Parts: sequence; C-alpha cells; structure tokens
Amino acid sequence: MKKENKEKDVKGITAEKDEFSEYFTELMIKADLVDYTNVSGCIAFKPVAYSIWEKIKEEVDKRFKEIGIKNVYFPLFIPEKTLMKEAEHFEGFTPEVAWVTRVGDKELNEKLAIRPTSETIMYESYAKWIRSWRDLPLLYNQWNNVVRWEFKNPVPFLRTREFLWNEGHTVYSRKKEAEEERDKILGIYKEVCEKYLAIPSLIGRKSKKETFAGAEYTYSMEFIMPNGKAIQGPDWHHDGQNFAKAYGIKFLNKDGKEEYAYQNTFAITTRILGIMFAIHSDDKGLILPPNIAPNKSVIVPIYFEDSKEKVLKACSVIAKMLKKYGVIFDDRVNYKPGFKFNEWEMKGIPLRIEIGPKEIEKKEVIIIRRDNNKKETVKIKDLKEKINEELEDIQNKLFDKAKKFLYGNFIECSSLNEVKKAIENKKIALAPLSKDEEIEDKLKFETGGAKVLNIPDEQPSVRGKCIISGKDADYYAYIGKSY
Amino acid sequence: MKKENKEKDVKGITAEKDEFSEYFTELMIKADLVDYTNVSGCIAFKPVAYSIWEKIKEEVDKRFKEIGIKNVYFPLFIPEKTLMKEAEHFEGFTPEVAWVTRVGDKELNEKLAIRPTSETIMYESYAKWIRSWRDLPLLYNQWNNVVRWEFKNPVPFLRTREFLWNEGHTVYSRKKEAEEERDKILGIYKEVCEKYLAIPSLIGRKSKKETFAGAEYTYSMEFIMPNGKAIQGPDWHHDGQNFAKAYGIKFLNKDGKEEYAYQNTFAITTRILGIMFAIHSDDKGLILPPNIAPNKSVIVPIYFEDSKEKVLKACSVIAKMLKKYGVIFDDRVNYKPGFKFNEWEMKGIPLRIEIGPKEIEKKEVIIIRRDNNKKETVKIKDLKEKINEELEDIQNKLFDKAKKFLYGNFIECSSLNEVKKAIENKKIALAPLSKDEEIEDKLKFETGGAKVLNIPDEQPSVRGKCIISGKDADYYAYIGKSY
Repeated sequence: MKKENKEKDVKGITAEKDEFSEYFTELMIKADLVDYTNVSGCIAFKPVAYSIWEKIKEEVDKRFKEIGIKNVYFPLFIPEKTLMKEAEHFEGFTPEVAWVTRVGDKELNEKLAIRPTSETIMYESYAKWIRSWRDLPLLYNQWNNVVRWEFKNPVPFLRTREFLWNEGHTVYSRKKEAEEERDKILGIYKEVCEKYLAIPSLIGRKSKKETFAGAEYTYSMEFIMPNGKAIQGPDWHHDGQNFAKAYGIKFLNKDGKEEYAYQNTFAITTRILGIMFAIHSDDKGLILPPNIAPNKSVIVPIYFEDSKEKVLKACSVIAKMLKKYGVIFDDRVNYKPGFKFNEWEMKGIPLRIEIGPKEIEKKEVIIIRRDNNKKETVKIKDLKEKINEELEDIQNKLFDKAKKFLYGNFIECSSLNEVKKAIENKKIALAPLSKDEEIEDKLKFETGGAKVLNIPDEQPSVRGKCIISGKDADYYAYIGKSY
Repeated sequence: MKKENKEKDVKGITAEKDEFSEYFTELMIKADLVDYTNVSGCIAFKPVAYSIWEKIKEEVDKRFKEIGIKNVYFPLFIPEKTLMKEAEHFEGFTPEVAWVTRVGDKELNEKLAIRPTSETIMYESYAKWIRSWRDLPLLYNQWNNVVRWEFKNPVPFLRTREFLWNEGHTVYSRKKEAEEERDKILGIYKEVCEKYLAIPSLIGRKSKKETFAGAEYTYSMEFIMPNGKAIQGPDWHHDGQNFAKAYGIKFLNKDGKEEYAYQNTFAITTRILGIMFAIHSDDKGLILPPNIAPNKSVIVPIYFEDSKEKVLKACSVIAKMLKKYGVIFDDRVNYKPGFKFNEWEMKGIPLRIEIGPKEIEKKEVIIIRRDNNKKETVKIKDLKEKINEELEDIQNKLFDKAKKFLYGNFIECSSLNEVKKAIENKKIALAPLSKDEEIEDKLKFETGGAKVLNIPDEQPSVRGKCIISGKDADYYAYIGKSY
C-alpha cells in the first residue's frame, strides 16, 4: 500500500462510515484481533493478529533472502530537507506527514518527519554507498513501521495511521534488469497471499493518474472485498532514474563512465491482514485459512457432572498427542460448550473437535468444519490423518470460494452505461479506456467515484473504443469503487 | 537498557569524546556495520549488523514463546495525558521525549510522544483487558523501535536516539509469581549473550538510586568494555503494583474480590550489538563469534595470471560444497589477496581459507583463524570437519577470553581508598556500601564519577563496613565508571 497521491483532493474528515466499516470493525474487536487505543487512528495488535503478521513476514522474508535481498534498518526520522528533494514524491506525502518539532521542552531547529516511507533517507545513503557497477545490484529491504496521517475514518488494519510493512528499495545498473525484478517480487507476494492467506488478486499496472508519487510506473495487486469494493494490496514500483537524479545515485560503468542508476521499490503491509479477515468471514465471525491460523483445531469437551473428570482427562490426552498439529484444548470449566462454540466460530478456528462420554466409549470424536459446518464422526486412531486432510481441504475450498467471488465479480463492458450499471451493482468492470488523466476524472464523475484499479498485462485481442471519448482505447482497465 | 532516571543531572551536550568512542565509531564504519545518516544521533544498520540483530531476536523470541510469552504490537505514539499518569515514570523520561505537534501544516490539539518505552500506552489497554484471575498471567511482549533523545555524544549501537529492542510487559495476580519470572527472563538473556555473542556479564540488583523510573526494583546485566568502563545490557524490572494503581489494572480474585495486579517489564536492545563488537575486537578490526556471524569462513583465492582460471574454479567448487556451513567465496578479481585479507579481518570473519595452485595440487588448503592468527594446512577431504571444529573452538576461546577479562577486571575492596585506586586503574570494585542515596552521591563525587553498577545476589559471608559511612554495610556492590 503506497500512497496514491492523487487521492488528496478528497481531504479533511470525510467519515466514510459505510455499513461494511462498522461491521468489520466490530468483527475485528469481537474476534479478539485488535483493540482501539486512545491514540486516534492507531490500533493495538493482539496476539493472534500479530502472530499472523509474523508468519507473513517470515514467508515473504525467506523468499526475499532466497533471491539475494538483504535486510537493513534506517532511522524513523527524516529531516525536512531530505524529504523535500524529490518534489513530486514530497508533494504526494506532505499533507499526511507527522512532524516532530520538539524534544522535552526544547524546540528543534529543523523539524523531523516520521517516515511515511523511506525512499528519501535511504537514497541519501545509497548515493554514498554506490560507487561502481560492482556495487550493483544493491538489494536492500526493511521491515518497519510507518506513519501516514489519514483523515478518513480509521478501520482496523485497512486504514490506520501507523502501519507495519516491508519496504524493498533496490538499485540496478540497467533499466531492463530493474524491470525484470517485477515478476519475482510480485510472484513472492502472490504466492504468500494465495498459498497462506487464500486470497486471489487482480494484478496489473496502475494508470498514470494512480501511479506512486515519484515512480515511473506502478504494479499493484487489487483485491475485491465482500461489499464489492476493490482494495489495493502489495505493490511494486519502477522509479526509473527519478530518485537517482534527485539524490545523486550514480555509478561508474564498465567503461569508467558515470551513469545514474535505476531503482525499484515494493511493499506488503499489515493492510493485507484486514483484506484476508474481510474476505474469509461470515455472520458468525472470522474464518482463518489453516495455513495461516496459529491454532488450527480446538477440542471442546462435552460433559455432565458425572462424566466431567473422564472427559477432561481424555481430551487432555488427545490434545497432547496432537499439539504439534496445531490442536488446542479449551479446558475452561466455567463456560458452557455453546458459549465456546460461538467464541471459536467468532475467532475463526478452522476445525472444532467435540468429545463427550459417548464418543470416548466408542473411541471416536466429532469434528466440525468452520467453513461449511460439516459434521463428521471420526475414529480417534484416524484423527491425525483426518485433521490434516480436512485442514488441507478447508484451505483449498476457501481459496476456491474467494476466486469464484473475484472472477464472478467483474463484467466486461464496452460502453459507459454498462460500466455505470456494473458499478451500481457493486461489480468491477473491465472496459476500454484512453490513458488521458481527464478521461479518468470524467469516469470518476460519471460513475459516482469509480476509478481505474489497474490494467492487466494480458489484454483482449481486439482494440476497443474508449467508453468516455469514443476514440480508440489505449487499454482495457479494471474499473471499480475502491476502499 | 531502560532509563536510568537519575542520570538526568548530567544534561545538555557534554560531548564525552573519550578515545574509545572515537576508536569504536571508526571501527563500526570501517567494518561496514553502520553508517551515519543526516538525522543527528540515528544510524543506518547495514546488512551484517541487522542480520546479527535478527539472529538475537530469533533466539530470544523462540525462548520467550517456549515459556508462554506472546507478541503484540502497540502504537508508536503516546498521548501526553497517558504518558503522565505515573508521575515518577513520566519524570524519568520526559526530558528525552520527542513530541509530534503537527501533521501536514496543522497543529495537533494534543501533542503525541514517540514512545520512549510503552508501559503507559500498554497498561491503559491492560486495564480494559484484564477482568479476572483467569486472565492472568498475561505475558505480552513487543519487538519495536523506541526514541530517547540522548544529549550525550552519539555512538553507533551504544548510544543512539532511536534503538530497537524487545519490551516484555507481564502481569501476575501474585507478587511471588511475578518475582519468580526473573530467573527465567534473565536466564534467556544470559544464555543468548553467552552462547551466541560470547559475552559474560555481572548480574545483580540495581541500587535504589539506579532503579528504573516507576519500578520497585531492577535487575541488570552489566558488561565490561575494553576501556574498563561498565555498560548496562538487558534488564528486568519488578514494578510491584505501581503501574497497576496508576492505570487501574485490577482483577477479581477467586473469592470475587478486586485486587491490583503485579507487573514486570524486561528488555534487550540493539546496544548489545555494540557491546559485543567492542568486546571482541582488536587493532585489526572486529572478531565475530562464529555462532552469531552470518558468514563464518571466507575463501580467498591466491593465483598468478597463469593459474587464475584453475584456482578460481577449484575455489568455486569448494565454496559450493561448503555453502551450508557458512563459507563464502571472495571471487573479486580486481582486488589483491592482501587487500582481501585486511578487509575480512576488519569485518571479523572467524576463518579465512586460502587456496592457491600449490594447495590444489596437494589437495589441501590453508586455514587462518581470525582470533589468534593460527595458520594450518588441511586436506580438502577433512575440511568440513576441521572448519566446524575450529569454529567451535573460536567460539569457546572468545568466551573464555571475555570471561577472563571480566573476572580479572574487578577487585574486592574494603576502603574508599582502595576503591578510588581501583577506579583509577580502570577496574571494577566490589565493596561494602550502605543503601542510602546520599552515600551513592558521595561515592560518585569521591571517585570522580563511579557508581553502583549492581548488587550481586551472592554476597560475601562477612558483613563489611560501608566504605563511605563506616557503618555496617547493607551489601557488597559492584562499583565502576559506566559508559
């Protein structure tokens, strides 16, 4: 989630309190993922939410390291002068920048920005560190916290003033080589989103209007939320030589001549947690994909007073046996089974295992899937295998369902009217457009706020007519309302 | 490293530019661990330094999780009102707090502190989250960045205005149970420091004067730097009910009565990197303990033009074979071996492997240890085993040497004169003292700045006379100048 710099025209407190935001916020709090703090727009990540972020980090980071990316850490603060060097970039961020102006009771001589992103401070160092073609490619990344003072209504994970992310900042000697990085990075984000979070996306290039402030072009992964609105996830930007020229990142090429370097940046943020939570949830609460769920199954004992001891003991033995498969045991004696069922459904644990005196006698248990409520009796001796089978199936079914929703949710259109109708019906349109910024402004106006999400690389073979101007279109673009 | 609140009397820019700081800073930059940025007092961690921090995090975090500690994430910002609730704590931090007062071009209604530590913001949430004895113990931790605007001369890792750390914040229903956590936490820090970083420490309780702002008592790990000065590393604090009372952290006990909870906090910071780098270094540069070194051995090819191809090829084959043992290959053809030797010695790689045409013919290589320069010829078939043997031995020898230095560096004293002499000779004194704060002030004055580092649990069996007052002492304490 990088800054979409042209969104600033909608400034001030617009308090976009649609029903989804309210539903979602309630869900996040009831599922014990976050809590509000008394810092406006900032949330506290509770253990389950943070452990999911840790897993995402781990999987992404492992893959980054495999392709030679190294982690570094740069300061939280950016001096005003440093931030201002690339004018377009600065303009894109400055309305949302939080400034430190004093320490203790002393005013600072130069105010310091809290990093909204670290291009500017990192690239001043890069300019010192890079001397020759031998220093390239330089493939650095950091995992950190950034602050962008959103004025819209905050929503846990989806829109918070501080968020966590990775920011990759790579430097190449050749443009082509820099551009070839794209598929690797987006491939990593895509793999982690699909394999672990079970969320499919629309990948494509941003229109000029929606390109990251300072970049030459931007690729994004767009997800569709249950309310039909699109939301941007991970992205990758090719900066060309824009920053290199502003910050003086030059290298001696093999012929001993000085050249400006080519740069990319890329990010995945804690917003992805919110996207996943929103996509996999229903009226009962969350549904966590097993590959990302810290706890995958919960044993709930069912007993009357006379069978209590026996049941608790048997559950405890089974729990110990299956601990390494992510099975936990809800041994709280002060809550009734019905309460526990509701709680674990709200928290989205993929499988529930019910064990009562009858089951113990027959050496079996009852398992209930969170995703489809399917109830099945399983022999204890088959339980381990069965759990793994069901978890794998849940993972696949969640992904299938999300894909079906995504692909069932967009409509190919060839006229403005068709697009308007699609947007009214909370769908995403795929329609031919000219690349003019004015065309996009008109589109937004005509559709009551829809915009170009991105432009897929794979284009229809026919060239359409722009739905706004009627002239030959430059591309087919995904169009929709965006969160 | 928590705030030593009574240090504030030495405020303003004191620019304590001792020789050690200059030597150390030069070393950190030459060894490619950090670079300055143009944010005063903040550094950029380069890949090797950051990967060492990642390893420390990983080892500590794994052990935390084994004892049931869970990670969370709280906001970077703390509203002024929240920070002020525990008066002593607030006073201890406020001169060093960085304040955000504006966003974009708008002044904020309430200024926000950048967290110097997160007790205050976390405990407001704890007060909401904790209801009953069943919610306890609550064992939460976060890994994050904090800011304390030091006015002393900044030194990479050892004294920076932003640093990275863990902050554990645990809550118990019983004081005894809370206090029993101490050995577990300090045991984890100690194990990681000794087993990976090869640095021994003096563990003990802080004197009242040096106790963390808001805590009932503090335990610290103190390390001795090559210049004879002590420096505080990880610490653990028992807060009693101080914060619980200020923030309203209450629970219903088993009898249904309301009680205030007991709390602890603990931390290890990126300062530990600096301590390790300082302890294991010599005139040639850094010496990295093999267990923490990201690269453990480097192959340097030695050739003339006629043997170049053959040597490079052989080295590459051996490097591939031994990659998983942390062996890297310096295949840069534009640098001479002598240059490479110096560079890798500066960077502290534990083992160097030299391979030339003669060695290839005899199917052997030469290995050189960084710690003692020992040179040995090894058959290639024995290399894997030999490398592991030598690395293990280097790890042990570095730790032995550091222990010898530590234990050789303190002197039992029974009079002020003896203590003065010890301090003059850059040693640490173990001497009997009264617990009065005034006594400590006098001690500091008399010794030209030495202070109580900490008070070991294991005390001499005889009770000494306080070296200042002459009365019966309360304890034997470690006394020394502190970094």
